[in-house]
Amino acid sequence: MKRRRFISQGHLIDSGILTNTLNTIISEGADYEIIEFKVGKTNALESVIEIDLICETEEQINALSPKLVHYGSYEKKTPEAVFKVASDDKCVPEDFYSTTNHRTEVFYNKKWHQVTNQRMDAVIVLTEEGLFCVKLRDIKKDDKVLCSSDSVRVFPPARERGSEDFGFMSGDVSPERSTDFVASKIAAELIKMKEKKEKVVVVAGPVVVHSGGSRAFSALIRGGFFSGVLAGNAIAVHDIESVFFGTSLGVCQKTGKPANEGHKNHMRAINRINLCGSIKNAVEKGVLTRGIMYEIVKSNTPYCLAGSIRDDGPLPEAVTDMIEAQSQYAEIIEGASMVIMLSSMLHSIGTGNMIPSWVKTVCIDINPSVVTKLSDRGSSQAMGIVSDVGLFLKALAEKCVPDFK
Amino acid sequence: MKRRRFISQGHLIDSGILTNTLNTIISEGADYEIIEFKVGKTNALESVIEIDLICETEEQINALSPKLVHYGSYEKKTPEAVFKVASDDKCVPEDFYSTTNHRTEVFYNKKWHQVTNQRMDAVIVLTEEGLFCVKLRDIKKDDKVLCSSDSVRVFPPARERGSEDFGFMSGDVSPERSTDFVASKIAAELIKMKEKKEKVVVVAGPVVVHSGGSRAFSALIRGGFFSGVLAGNAIAVHDIESVFFGTSLGVCQKTGKPANEGHKNHMRAINRINLCGSIKNAVEKGVLTRGIMYEIVKSNTPYCLAGSIRDDGPLPEAVTDMIEAQSQYAEIIEGASMVIMLSSMLHSIGTGNMIPSWVKTVCIDINPSVVTKLSDRGSSQAMGIVSDVGLFLKALAEKCVPDFK
Amino acid sequence: MKRRRFISQGHLIDSGILTNTLNTIISEGADYEIIEFKVGKTNALESVIEIDLICETEEQINALSPKLVHYGSYEKKTPEAVFKVASDDKCVPEDFYSTTNHRTEVFYNKKWHQVTNQRMDAVIVLTEEGLFCVKLRDIKKDDKVLCSSDSVRVFPPARERGSEDFGFMSGDVSPERSTDFVASKIAAELIKMKEKKEKVVVVAGPVVVHSGGSRAFSALIRGGFFSGVLAGNAIAVHDIESVFFGTSLGVCQKTGKPANEGHKNHMRAINRINLCGSIKNAVEKGVLTRGIMYEIVKSNTPYCLAGSIRDDGPLPEAVTDMIEAQSQYAEIIEGASMVIMLSSMLHSIGTGNMIPSWVKTVCIDINPSVVTKLSDRGSSQAMGIVSDVGLFLKALAEKCVPDFK
Amino acid sequence: MKRRRFISQGHLIDSGILTNTLNTIISEGADYEIIEFKVGKTNALESVIEIDLICETEEQINALSPKLVHYGSYEKKTPEAVFKVASDDKCVPEDFYSTTNHRTEVFYNKKWHQVTNQRMDAVIVLTEEGLFCVKLRDIKKDDKVLCSSDSVRVFPPARERGSEDFGFMSGDVSPERSTDFVASKIAAELIKMKEKKEKVVVVAGPVVVHSGGSRAFSALIRGGFFSGVLAGNAIAVHDIESVFFGTSLGVCQKTGKPANEGHKNHMRAINRINLCGSIKNAVEKGVLTRGIMYEIVKSNTPYCLAGSIRDDGPLPEAVTDMIEAQSQYAEIIEGASMVIMLSSMLHSIGTGNMIPSWVKTVCIDINPSVVTKLSDRGSSQAMGIVSDVGLFLKALAEKCVPDFK
Repeated sequence: MKRRRFISQGHLIDSGILTNTLNTIISEGADYEIIEFKVGKTNALESVIEIDLICETEEQINALSPKLVHYGSYEKKTPEAVFKVASDDKCVPEDFYSTTNHRTEVFYNKKWHQVTNQRMDAVIVLTEEGLFCVKLRDIKKDDKVLCSSDSVRVFPPARERGSEDFGFMSGDVSPERSTDFVASKIAAELIKMKEKKEKVVVVAGPVVVHSGGSRAFSALIRGGFFSGVLAGNAIAVHDIESVFFGTSLGVCQKTGKPANEGHKNHMRAINRINLCGSIKNAVEKGVLTRGIMYEIVKSNTPYCLAGSIRDDGPLPEAVTDMIEAQSQYAEIIEGASMVIMLSSMLHSIGTGNMIPSWVKTVCIDINPSVVTKLSDRGSSQAMGIVSDVGLFLKALAEKCVPDFK
Repeated sequence: MKRRRFISQGHLIDSGILTNTLNTIISEGADYEIIEFKVGKTNALESVIEIDLICETEEQINALSPKLVHYGSYEKKTPEAVFKVASDDKCVPEDFYSTTNHRTEVFYNKKWHQVTNQRMDAVIVLTEEGLFCVKLRDIKKDDKVLCSSDSVRVFPPARERGSEDFGFMSGDVSPERSTDFVASKIAAELIKMKEKKEKVVVVAGPVVVHSGGSRAFSALIRGGFFSGVLAGNAIAVHDIESVFFGTSLGVCQKTGKPANEGHKNHMRAINRINLCGSIKNAVEKGVLTRGIMYEIVKSNTPYCLAGSIRDDGPLPEAVTDMIEAQSQYAEIIEGASMVIMLSSMLHSIGTGNMIPSWVKTVCIDINPSVVTKLSDRGSSQAMGIVSDVGLFLKALAEKCVPDFK
Repeated sequence: MKRRRFISQGHLIDSGILTNTLNTIISEGADYEIIEFKVGKTNALESVIEIDLICETEEQINALSPKLVHYGSYEKKTPEAVFKVASDDKCVPEDFYSTTNHRTEVFYNKKWHQVTNQRMDAVIVLTEEGLFCVKLRDIKKDDKVLCSSDSVRVFPPARERGSEDFGFMSGDVSPERSTDFVASKIAAELIKMKEKKEKVVVVAGPVVVHSGGSRAFSALIRGGFFSGVLAGNAIAVHDIESVFFGTSLGVCQKTGKPANEGHKNHMRAINRINLCGSIKNAVEKGVLTRGIMYEIVKSNTPYCLAGSIRDDGPLPEAVTDMIEAQSQYAEIIEGASMVIMLSSMLHSIGTGNMIPSWVKTVCIDINPSVVTKLSDRGSSQAMGIVSDVGLFLKALAEKCVPDFK
Repeated sequence: MKRRRFISQGHLIDSGILTNTLNTIISEGADYEIIEFKVGKTNALESVIEIDLICETEEQINALSPKLVHYGSYEKKTPEAVFKVASDDKCVPEDFYSTTNHRTEVFYNKKWHQVTNQRMDAVIVLTEEGLFCVKLRDIKKDDKVLCSSDSVRVFPPARERGSEDFGFMSGDVSPERSTDFVASKIAAELIKMKEKKEKVVVVAGPVVVHSGGSRAFSALIRGGFFSGVLAGNAIAVHDIESVFFGTSLGVCQKTGKPANEGHKNHMRAINRINLCGSIKNAVEKGVLTRGIMYEIVKSNTPYCLAGSIRDDGPLPEAVTDMIEAQSQYAEIIEGASMVIMLSSMLHSIGTGNMIPSWVKTVCIDINPSVVTKLSDRGSSQAMGIVSDVGLFLKALAEKCVPDFK
């Protein structure tokens, strides 16, 4: 039998890390022996455990080690990280380390170094300025790429502790909960973050307009609650359609009935913006005088309208190249403390890919499977709220914006 | 080729009846010839059409005739209705006529007679007082049962006409609509019906409590907007649980988190009611002092808690025999002008089975498939609202109850 | 500060029990000190931990203790269980212990005694034959009812261990998985259980018929794979409708199109059974010659058709009183090793309430929220499969029944 | 009162067109008089109706006319079409005619001319070669743009007639139907179309891989049933991941459990393709030896992988610019007789926008709301099948590909 010794340190028990670690070993057909276990006797103290991973072959040990590292363990004698050069642009050695969205450290030059620009599904590159998460497509020939998971340790976010009444990191979804209560909590958080000048970014889909949430969303933008808006072409088209023609997707916003010739309105809206040259021009020329895009332009809120295969138009400001759109999204989201995702699976998953796991993430959708999918794709920190986005935004605006009715 | 002549009269074109009639003939492999067609030249005038149904055999004609009758056609020389006696309790001749939920007339003694107690899936029985819809299980030996669809005509509800802005009979479902607007319209309807003393009945599931809608629902009951409440054991249990312990299904209504030992609270609530002997006693003894059931008892609103296979308890007032529960439901719903269904597929379909198609029916659920199913099971008049029931009730109460906040 | 000492023993770390225990203490605003922690050094060995629960008041300690007991802890000096007499039928003292569905032991006469008839939401009664789970409504005046959670310990099911490739206790739901693979595993389990004469019970809704699964389900019943069928009136009605008329809910099973006069077929089917007197008679008289109910009757498989508020008919065999239906369900399910739930939320939750947590539970539904709800209501052991029930049953029959095509 | 005379010709009654036309007039607050109505007396004969539209003002008549045109009516004296020049690239006069996806004719030079490249939300441009649908963004300065709906007539697809047993144009969605039966019908259609060399195009999302449908889909591609595949980056990534590593999204395809380090596999797959330079190279070099992309490359099936904001990688073949991706999609889809959409809302709606309404469109998804949305966005011809895509593809392959098991 082969053995390798691992150390794990922190709030091992209450975070569930120790449980996960030992379960992994057993479920993989390996075994363990606990060498030493210093339990943090009180809640304030960390625990340290030293275990031997026991396998039949060295290969098995090599196969299992990365999984333990994934849970925050590291080899007792952590080996120096191995970096290999990229053979070509966009190409890395096959044994490269692919990142999670958790805080990550790498052991080299005999100490642990933290990685910058943490995000999931990236490669870690060593430069003279330190370690960076780099997307595979941004790798350049000769970049030094981390190729050993044995020299890595990651820090999954600790659950929020103490007797707080509301957990943002719950990863929990249920339609059977009082949305009004949840809206109060998020409103309180928004107000606090605005005071502290923390960055809140919104991801929004066209359902915001269809469900009657435009007025509330506009009020929140005007109120300065958001530092950025990530969206697609559709929400802008339907917002502008509703301002110009009173319809969204051709449905009258007053009566809820299909408007006469209404299905043409979104094309008319795009044409009118094209005639102005851009949304910005339309605002400046006094053609577009209210609504979501108006408030975004007026308040200089950074935003990106990412294109998609289903776009009509698109509007002049839409970014049709996905490489460019991802870059703009990443720039806007950088440093955000909170992300609120409003009924847009596509853009929410896209954004989820870019943010580290310690960002407070709230996802509101009437379809519970959207939140489930977001979580399945790695953004397990997201708190899901299954509700009506229009009514939810109204509740939020009523609590955040003093004169909103 | 065999022919039989049919007459159809009314707003044949704008109601789509003519289209459906001719399509049915063709899709069944038969043919038609239009003998005479007097088109109502203006909107105010009815049309009359006389057509020959053409089939190869008499059998085919007999098979197709009931379908034309279903669309409101009748044979030019309508034959006298055939009534046969029931051979035994609950047993009728195999060729019995099974009802729809539309207004129905039967031709006998040389004229058309309207059927009373219209509901779907019933048998038509001739008594000395006239024609009645009777459930199969209520048939008694020797009842005179209608056994010919050739002597029947039905009247599907006409679509609401004129340039009204909101249609209750839309049979339409969409999550992409402003719920706040829809709530305004229903609130206006509730206020109008209360003034006119028309009967509004609510069907409600436990999600009303879980989603934080209890306070608004209680206020609407107290405000006298409902003439009856149809529900199950669960909403009463969780309402009472939330009043006694602040939880529903063990989840704290304030914090949204599972309460300590919360999963036991609903059993404690049932036990406490059992100790009082009944919900009514609990209210009278001052043990139960607010909430949905409290308001129902205090206002003497007729209600029925129908039992189900998944019930805990059940509460003393729950009706555990389904035959009895259906009777009580039918009595409470009788004569209702409007039915509002709140997040309960089981009780909504049960109620839908009992009401004629001209009752305004609104169904609110966060799950679009509930409304679809209701419609698939014959209640095609139902207007579906895909939304968050808690927020929807709050919006409704704010618009209906002056002092509600 | 007040302290109380607890002991917890078993596979504490890999089961997550220790994590849950400590988290609970902290999240309730209390604290702990670990007095002794004997870690099972290898996978085969159990751990024992002794901790002090630390609170500011005795009341807090009393409030928290039941929660620790819930996770399998017990007080170091376990007090003798307190039993109090029921003051009346259906009424127990307010501090009664309400059960979970996990294996439970109670400490009295200085030792631990296991409880019989384990199910959730029951009361524990002490008789001369030992301890029993009794439903609140079955409590008789003067029954001795357990009223202290400090003398109780429960055993949540251990996760399946070892490198098995398929976990029945996953509590996991995802539509993004190969159903064909899952069907193979369940088929293998069914075959094995049949050989071992273990009891498999099926809960089935009418979607089995609508989705074209009747033939496969019938073959599995005929093949002797099920020891019981729990259902409602609807599946029997539509099964019989489809045998007599080739439709289910009026939709032709061959063409998928609404059949001529099809909406009347289910009433015709009920009437024909009424004419025979019962389903059983219809089979014996040669009136009903194939299908699900036919196979159930022919094979003498125990079954119960529980009534509901939405039933048409119901059929003579339907049990319309819910108290009686729950009793019959409980009797059929007793001792089952596996329960397969096919597209029936109502009956699945009803059944879930009755079974202990160590029964293998599989729930197949096209709607992911059904499985989520089942789990939310306490049956967290259920493995969810989001799939098309008709195709799933076909895949199962192909793998279980040699000559099925 | 103002009047304008309209003519409508065709199967007016059985198609529902007449009903829709008259209802529209009334619901808009206008009125009509029927001047002449020649009813097609038998099923084979067309009807012709001449009606006067009656409004209070000329403005109302102008506002209503386009709606009647939308239903296929035309003015008795159809005015010559008005074309105006585009003032700039991408900009048309505000009164431009925006197309539907139905067959369209325009009246100029005293006769009706059919429009080429029919699609929805386009502009009609007059060139020397005739009339073309042109997307707004492809409009060039000085293009002659149709600006009068009075000179347009459209032809909504007639419902399929006769006693066929299966309707592709049903626009119907229901999870309660036998998928196995539907698969048989589609298989028969696929076989027939292959024989006739008609074009069938597939739109496919990654759920095809996750749900275990790869093998069946690969067999269908190899069998030559598809003339094109429209997809995104994700299905290709996960297909290749599953070939290289046996996982999709990190979940083992054999066991259904998350694989060790599985979440890194899709990045490894992308990197390996990058090392080869392209998917095509990977196939040619023998690196990629089976699976969906392998079969597509081997069979030279035209395909397009449209990028999106949520892409990892993307793969070298992914088209990251949406303008370019839409062009490639449009080219591949051109002339298709049938489109099969497999679990991809994004790409399905994108494709739906491009195809005329007479293309047979089938949409398979486990989520009923996907089909509803497709229909809401104009592709009302789509037949929806709510099922498990993996099992559905298996059923299809078993019926289409002789040696598939």
